[in-house]
Amino acid sequence: MPNGQPLPPDELGPRLSALFRAVGPLYRHAARQVAEAESIEGVSTGVRAVLEQLHVAGPQTVPGIARAVATSRQYVQRMTNEAAERDLVITADNPTHRRSSLVELTPAGQATIERILTREHIALAAVGEGLTDAEVATCTAVLERLVAGLEPR
Amino acid sequence: MPNGQPLPPDELGPRLSALFRAVGPLYRHAARQVAEAESIEGVSTGVRAVLEQLHVAGPQTVPGIARAVATSRQYVQRMTNEAAERDLVITADNPTHRRSSLVELTPAGQATIERILTREHIALAAVGEGLTDAEVATCTAVLERLVAGLEPR
Repeated sequence: MPNGQPLPPDELGPRLSALFRAVGPLYRHAARQVAEAESIEGVSTGVRAVLEQLHVAGPQTVPGIARAVATSRQYVQRMTNEAAERDLVITADNPTHRRSSLVELTPAGQATIERILTREHIALAAVGEGLTDAEVATCTAVLERLVAGLEPR
Repeated sequence: MPNGQPLPPDELGPRLSALFRAVGPLYRHAARQVAEAESIEGVSTGVRAVLEQLHVAGPQTVPGIARAVATSRQYVQRMTNEAAERDLVITADNPTHRRSSLVELTPAGQATIERILTREHIALAAVGEGLTDAEVATCTAVLERLVAGLEPR
């Protein structure tokens, strides 16, 4: 089937360019909705991102979280400090390997991110109503592949 | 085939949540690469976005561009002014309908955005090497659908 052939580079480039034209608007719309929901749980967008990453991937270092969400360590450190002040995460102290200290969710942090994600899942299910397993799987795989390709070496 | 069935809401929500976890990193990686390339053409990320939108969709008003790229009119107006000062776009004056003035590319603006996009297409083709027509088409359609679903009413 012709659809199963890799696209030649001179077609692939413009086609991915068109794909990326949807990424910016999607990111900004989603960021706006997350920001609008801050008042519900009282958790900022940045703290929410840290809690979600810990929820999805388990205890991690600040540099590990920063790499996973493709943002700066400084920002993740600030958000982690904010979350720790509110008892949503704890950092396992490790004076000899400060950089390898693991950040993990507290029970309160776990409950908070679960409430946030449950609310978001309901909203997303309404937005994407009718999408099939194959469509979502293909799109997610393509995005993850592009993320990996664009990561700094 | 079971893959062709719409996902039930309780599965769709978490699946789209996983999809969105790739959107933020993809956006930030792409934005970084666009920013790093600013020095090549001497065009800022914001001006580049305006030029691309005019290139793709033809002459448009500032509010039209802002809606298409999901950002504020004020920002698009600033970027349009910057592009106009550099003779990359012109605005067809219309004193009685200032808001409906159409912004359009000059020949210099057209040449600039074509150079930028040609360079980007080559880079994107390398990043996405091996992706098929069907994969890119499905992913783009899913993203556009989610953008439409998240647009403010």
